[in-house]
Amino acid sequence: MSGLVSLVGAGPGDPELLTRKAARRLAEAHLVLYDALVSVEALALAPRAQKFYVGKRCKRHAMSQETIHRLMVRAARRGKRVVRLKGGDPFVFGRGGEEALALRAAGVAFEVVPGVSSAVAAPALAGIPVTHRGVSSAFTVVSGHDDDAFTSAIGQLTPNGVTVVVLMGLGRSASIASTLIDRGWSRGTPAAIVVDAWKPQQQTWRGTLDQLAADSVEIDASGAGTIVIGDVVTVGIQRTVQDAVAGWPLQGRQSRA
Amino acid sequence: MSGLVSLVGAGPGDPELLTRKAARRLAEAHLVLYDALVSVEALALAPRAQKFYVGKRCKRHAMSQETIHRLMVRAARRGKRVVRLKGGDPFVFGRGGEEALALRAAGVAFEVVPGVSSAVAAPALAGIPVTHRGVSSAFTVVSGHDDDAFTSAIGQLTPNGVTVVVLMGLGRSASIASTLIDRGWSRGTPAAIVVDAWKPQQQTWRGTLDQLAADSVEIDASGAGTIVIGDVVTVGIQRTVQDAVAGWPLQGRQSRA
Repeated sequence: MSGLVSLVGAGPGDPELLTRKAARRLAEAHLVLYDALVSVEALALAPRAQKFYVGKRCKRHAMSQETIHRLMVRAARRGKRVVRLKGGDPFVFGRGGEEALALRAAGVAFEVVPGVSSAVAAPALAGIPVTHRGVSSAFTVVSGHDDDAFTSAIGQLTPNGVTVVVLMGLGRSASIASTLIDRGWSRGTPAAIVVDAWKPQQQTWRGTLDQLAADSVEIDASGAGTIVIGDVVTVGIQRTVQDAVAGWPLQGRQSRA
Repeated sequence: MSGLVSLVGAGPGDPELLTRKAARRLAEAHLVLYDALVSVEALALAPRAQKFYVGKRCKRHAMSQETIHRLMVRAARRGKRVVRLKGGDPFVFGRGGEEALALRAAGVAFEVVPGVSSAVAAPALAGIPVTHRGVSSAFTVVSGHDDDAFTSAIGQLTPNGVTVVVLMGLGRSASIASTLIDRGWSRGTPAAIVVDAWKPQQQTWRGTLDQLAADSVEIDASGAGTIVIGDVVTVGIQRTVQDAVAGWPLQGRQSRA
C-alpha cells in the first residue's frame, strides 16, 4: 500500500463539524500532525495513529515548518497514511498551500480535504450571517495575526463597505479596531467577537468599533475567537436562537452581550 | 418530542464533505427541504424523510420563500425534525439569515449547522489556496448572481488587491471579468474557473481576466462553478495534486487547463 498525506480541515473545533471524509481519514491514519485549535475529541477519532502536536503556542512553533514537511514525507514514503489536521480549513491562513507544494516537490501523494472555516462558522454559530440580503452582499476574510499584513489587507477595502471577518486577531482586537477607524471606518460600525463558538460556554460580545478600540470589551481572549465588523452583526438572529432553543438539549448557547 | 428545524450546509456537493452533524440530522429527519446544489447521495442519508425540492432553476423558484418558511414552521410545530439543506454554507448567500429570522418570529426551535463553503473548498479542490503566504493575505467572497450587487460589492475593493472569489457567477463570467477590468483590475490578472469541484470530472480553467472577458473560455457552464481572481491562481498546486495522485484510487481529478 502506498502512502498518502491528507491535508485536512478540522473545522471550528466541534468534532461534529468535522466532515465525514475527515473522520474517515482520521480513522485510517497511522500518523496525525495537529495544530493548536484541534479538539481532543477530533484526535480521539484516530485511535490507531501516533499523534504529534506541531502547532504554535505563545508565538513559538512547536516544530519548524521544514520539520513538519520532513515528517510527512518520510511517513508517506514508508507507506503510511498521514493526516495533517488544521483548525478550520487548510487553505485559509493554514499554510496548507506551502505544505502541498512541499509534498509535491517530494513526489508524495497527497490530497486536500476542505473543512468548515471559522470565518463563516463562528459568526453563524453566534447567529451572525456573514451575508444577508439587503445588508451585506460580500465579505472579506483577513488575518489579524500580524499588524502589517492586516493593515495592508484592510487598505484594499473601502471603509464601511463589505463585512470584514478577522481570524486570529483576538489578542489584538483593540488595535484592529483602531486601524479600521484610522482608515475611515465609522466609529459606530457594529462589531462582534465570538469566542469558543461551538462550545456550550460560547461567549459573544456585540458593540461598536469605538468600544472595541477602547479595549473595554469584557471577554476571555484565551480561546479561539473571530471578530466580525459590519451591519450583519445587528441582523439579530443570535438572541433568537438563544431564546428559541432555550432548554433544547441538543444545543445550549450562551451570550453575555 | 418537540420539533426542531436545522438550517444545514451541505458543502460543495461531495457527500463526504458533509459534516458529521449534517449527516446525523439527515438520518433523524422527518422532512428535508433541499436546494439545487444538493447531491442525491446527500439526500440518501435521510431514508426516513419526506423530501421536497424547493430551490431555484432557470431563475424560477420552485417554491416561494414564504412557502418554505410556512412548511418548516408547520412541521416543527407538529414535533417533526426538519432539515433545510442548502449547498455550501447556509449563511453564505444562502438566505439562511432570512429563514432563521422567520423561524424566530414563529417561535420555532432551530439551529444552524455550518457547512463547507464552496468559496474556499472549490478552489482548494482545484489546488488553489485562497490565501497563501507572500501571495494573498485576505480574500473577498462575492455573489456573481446579480449584476448590480456584484458591481456594488466590487466597488468596495481596491483593484488588484485581495483574492476575489465569485460564487454563482458561472453564467456571467465574461461580464464579471469586464466589470473588474473597467474598475481597474489589470487585464493580465490570473483567473480560474472551477466547475464540479468535487467530482471526478472536475473541470478547471486557468487564464487571465482578459481571456475571461473575451468569453473564449471552453468550459461546460451547466454545473456549479466558482471563479477565483488573483495571484493565488498561479501558486501551482493543482497540477501537483493531479500528478502526484495519478492512479490513486481515492481521488482522481482532471483538468483541462
